[in-house]
Amino acid sequence: MSDLLNDELAVLNVGIEAFAESVRAHGGAARHIDWRPPGDGEPALAWRLAALLGDPRDPDAPGSRVDRANGTAAARMLAAQPRLVDIALQARDVWPDMGRTLLHAGAPLSWEAMCAPMRGSMIGAVLYEGWAKSPEEAEAMLGRGAIPFAQCHDWQAVGPMSGVISQSMPLFVVKNTTHGNTAYTNFSEGIGRVLRFGAYSQPVLDQLRWMETVLAPAIKAAVAHAHDGIDLKAIQSQALLMGDEVHSRNAAATGLFFMAVAPALTGSDFDRAKAAAALAFVAANSQFFLNLSMAAAKATMDAAHGVEHSSIVTAIARNGVTTAIRVSGLGAHWFEAPSDTPEGLYFPGFKQADANPDLGDSAICETAGFGGQSLAASPALVKLVGGSVAQAIAYSREMAHIAWTRNPTMSLPNLEFAGAPAGIDVRKVVDTGIRPVLTTGIAHRTAGVGQIGAGIVRVPMGCFTQALAALADALGV
Amino acid sequence: MSDLLNDELAVLNVGIEAFAESVRAHGGAARHIDWRPPGDGEPALAWRLAALLGDPRDPDAPGSRVDRANGTAAARMLAAQPRLVDIALQARDVWPDMGRTLLHAGAPLSWEAMCAPMRGSMIGAVLYEGWAKSPEEAEAMLGRGAIPFAQCHDWQAVGPMSGVISQSMPLFVVKNTTHGNTAYTNFSEGIGRVLRFGAYSQPVLDQLRWMETVLAPAIKAAVAHAHDGIDLKAIQSQALLMGDEVHSRNAAATGLFFMAVAPALTGSDFDRAKAAAALAFVAANSQFFLNLSMAAAKATMDAAHGVEHSSIVTAIARNGVTTAIRVSGLGAHWFEAPSDTPEGLYFPGFKQADANPDLGDSAICETAGFGGQSLAASPALVKLVGGSVAQAIAYSREMAHIAWTRNPTMSLPNLEFAGAPAGIDVRKVVDTGIRPVLTTGIAHRTAGVGQIGAGIVRVPMGCFTQALAALADALGV
Repeated sequence: MSDLLNDELAVLNVGIEAFAESVRAHGGAARHIDWRPPGDGEPALAWRLAALLGDPRDPDAPGSRVDRANGTAAARMLAAQPRLVDIALQARDVWPDMGRTLLHAGAPLSWEAMCAPMRGSMIGAVLYEGWAKSPEEAEAMLGRGAIPFAQCHDWQAVGPMSGVISQSMPLFVVKNTTHGNTAYTNFSEGIGRVLRFGAYSQPVLDQLRWMETVLAPAIKAAVAHAHDGIDLKAIQSQALLMGDEVHSRNAAATGLFFMAVAPALTGSDFDRAKAAAALAFVAANSQFFLNLSMAAAKATMDAAHGVEHSSIVTAIARNGVTTAIRVSGLGAHWFEAPSDTPEGLYFPGFKQADANPDLGDSAICETAGFGGQSLAASPALVKLVGGSVAQAIAYSREMAHIAWTRNPTMSLPNLEFAGAPAGIDVRKVVDTGIRPVLTTGIAHRTAGVGQIGAGIVRVPMGCFTQALAALADALGV
Repeated sequence: MSDLLNDELAVLNVGIEAFAESVRAHGGAARHIDWRPPGDGEPALAWRLAALLGDPRDPDAPGSRVDRANGTAAARMLAAQPRLVDIALQARDVWPDMGRTLLHAGAPLSWEAMCAPMRGSMIGAVLYEGWAKSPEEAEAMLGRGAIPFAQCHDWQAVGPMSGVISQSMPLFVVKNTTHGNTAYTNFSEGIGRVLRFGAYSQPVLDQLRWMETVLAPAIKAAVAHAHDGIDLKAIQSQALLMGDEVHSRNAAATGLFFMAVAPALTGSDFDRAKAAAALAFVAANSQFFLNLSMAAAKATMDAAHGVEHSSIVTAIARNGVTTAIRVSGLGAHWFEAPSDTPEGLYFPGFKQADANPDLGDSAICETAGFGGQSLAASPALVKLVGGSVAQAIAYSREMAHIAWTRNPTMSLPNLEFAGAPAGIDVRKVVDTGIRPVLTTGIAHRTAGVGQIGAGIVRVPMGCFTQALAALADALGV
């Protein structure tokens, strides 16, 4: 401010920055104030928002009730203790009645509405389960509605990218030992041509079979050996000190997880060559921990869900068409809006026009305070997603403006160890106009090509304005 | 500067900052310029220094010859490729004639001169080798000169803290595959009561025996399986992106090393329970990689040593009494000065008065660009050594002023991926008065108590003024 106050003539510009540029271009001194009208430019919504903000003079005011509810939800979030307690060798061991149901990421959608990578994943799952002999036959089955779909989130599960889970696939079983709830996720296939990006060639299916019959039993043998399972929260916390934001970068977390399982597996009576192959697979995949970070976040945020009147976001999920959020006090309803396409860096030979709209359940990490919320922890990630380290740090500062609180167990070293922003508050998003930042992989819009880059994307404002209206309805505002 | 120039009356203060404080106290505006006279306040040395600085108009000037030599030494340093190629199960396999010689850290010193922790280490080594039946007997042998001493550095070796190596102890064998030279180091014992801090109770000796008979053969089996050994430079480079400065923090590097050895060990025919125990030992010791980082630095800097007229520091070593440096163009001579005592954070119950003066060969890491040179890479380390993240970053900026170049393969994310400062130039230290910063563990001054804290220490200026004078002599300046 001091520069400005030293000038004789000064302009404070609020709103559209171009006006300030114009003053400066004519030799004037102008300071731009970054401000957008609350309520996404809708005066009626802005008035409802005002009534939903806390009022310290009136504990019975609607906003004060939201504040109290958020305090409860946030306390549950911070108290959660997600631990990897077991591996289910097949999903049907967890869900005996799942039959041919295929789980997918994001909010519900029909076969017709699915993007190409998700369709490819569904075809691959049908082939993997042996329900069809050819991709054409699988596609026909899917097209005529012979295969039911369900969303991972409604089955206490999450899956990256297309998020496909079918009955034979192994699952990580993550228990929140504080609240007793459980979350599930599938196993990371590594990079390249993989099912979650819509590939279903024979090598893809062969690797899935190896994961089911070798990798999953190996990790299960190691976890069985660990007292009370493996503490995923401790791994996430340490990884934030080691350059991961524990969504799009998990190099340190994967190493910590690896060190937690390798001695037990080596000392077990599990087949030795297979144990070595399983360990080599994990060691070669620096994102192996992503699925575990997601399940830990899911187990955490499910505990914070269902607090009446709470405006804290408990899930963000993308089905490749829409981005959808769930809110603690607003039940199972998804508030959806068309997804943005991520901006970032592309692998050689690919460009933004090749990118599928944002996809996957992995944004559950951001609801729990990781990923874009904790980007300050991961300077190295800017080499993958673009931008500067200063920008990465600025994202975490920005996200603090829309967070209900900070998580003292998740320190961000580059913010002098301030806790990571925790608990996205729908009201604050609509009030400030700051949309949550997600770090994300970028899928090719054609099935099976795989990952073509990584970047940054923001959750559409429409998710939050709809949720705010619903919250106002619920409180009679 | 803008604040200053806006004022009507201004003082530029050079030298002692108290004068500027005085002006400010009387309401004046003063800007302090941080400057110290070159040559450590010795005009004669300052004149010699001036003659040793490069002169672009005269390629035959003494300083221009030093510049060229430094270019050669730095190129060797940057081209080095240190790899862990083998484990020697006993030191005498490497040095068949070592007999009862005990190696130690730092410059040569007598039994009488040794600090208590180093004496404790020597007693422990004599007991470990079975040359005496009791500590009293061992001490008497050492006191009457029955056991010869040698410094690690002269045997192409390095050791943390007391640095003790005796004939039965296993060694890591690190080869610089670019230049063909080899470096050795002992195995990390973990923390607590350990030989390198002067402890020699039966559990300490028992663990050393287990390391000799189980841990070392296990790692040897894994390394034998790796094609061309394990690339230590790649681990160091990645670890700098993961919160390590690869001297006092090696949490990420240890994890990367662990992932490099565990699959091969698990798949080998090495005894299974012993393999599991070896892996569990490494996983529980986040500083396990320190010794490997030191040997990698030693293999790197030995290749840069011996370039006539080069002023680049190729070793910094502390024997608990003196800190000593070697310089590329000045042969095997140690330039010594009394060590400073580290300042930092102490474990509960300990204070600075308990601290031994700085100890160990681990400062070889700083000569190769790690530790204090790369402190910007390790925000998490400030929780161990004290200070703020901003200070940690400032140290790396400061160190760049005394470095010959930067190492493009060692990026510091918090400096927007600038290369780590590489190659401490004796001339720049004497010119700027900036002494190299070392990150270091703090030993209790009583033998066997162990580590009592961690902190920061600077290399004494006397090492550099002596080296500069010797370089001036060699060039006839």
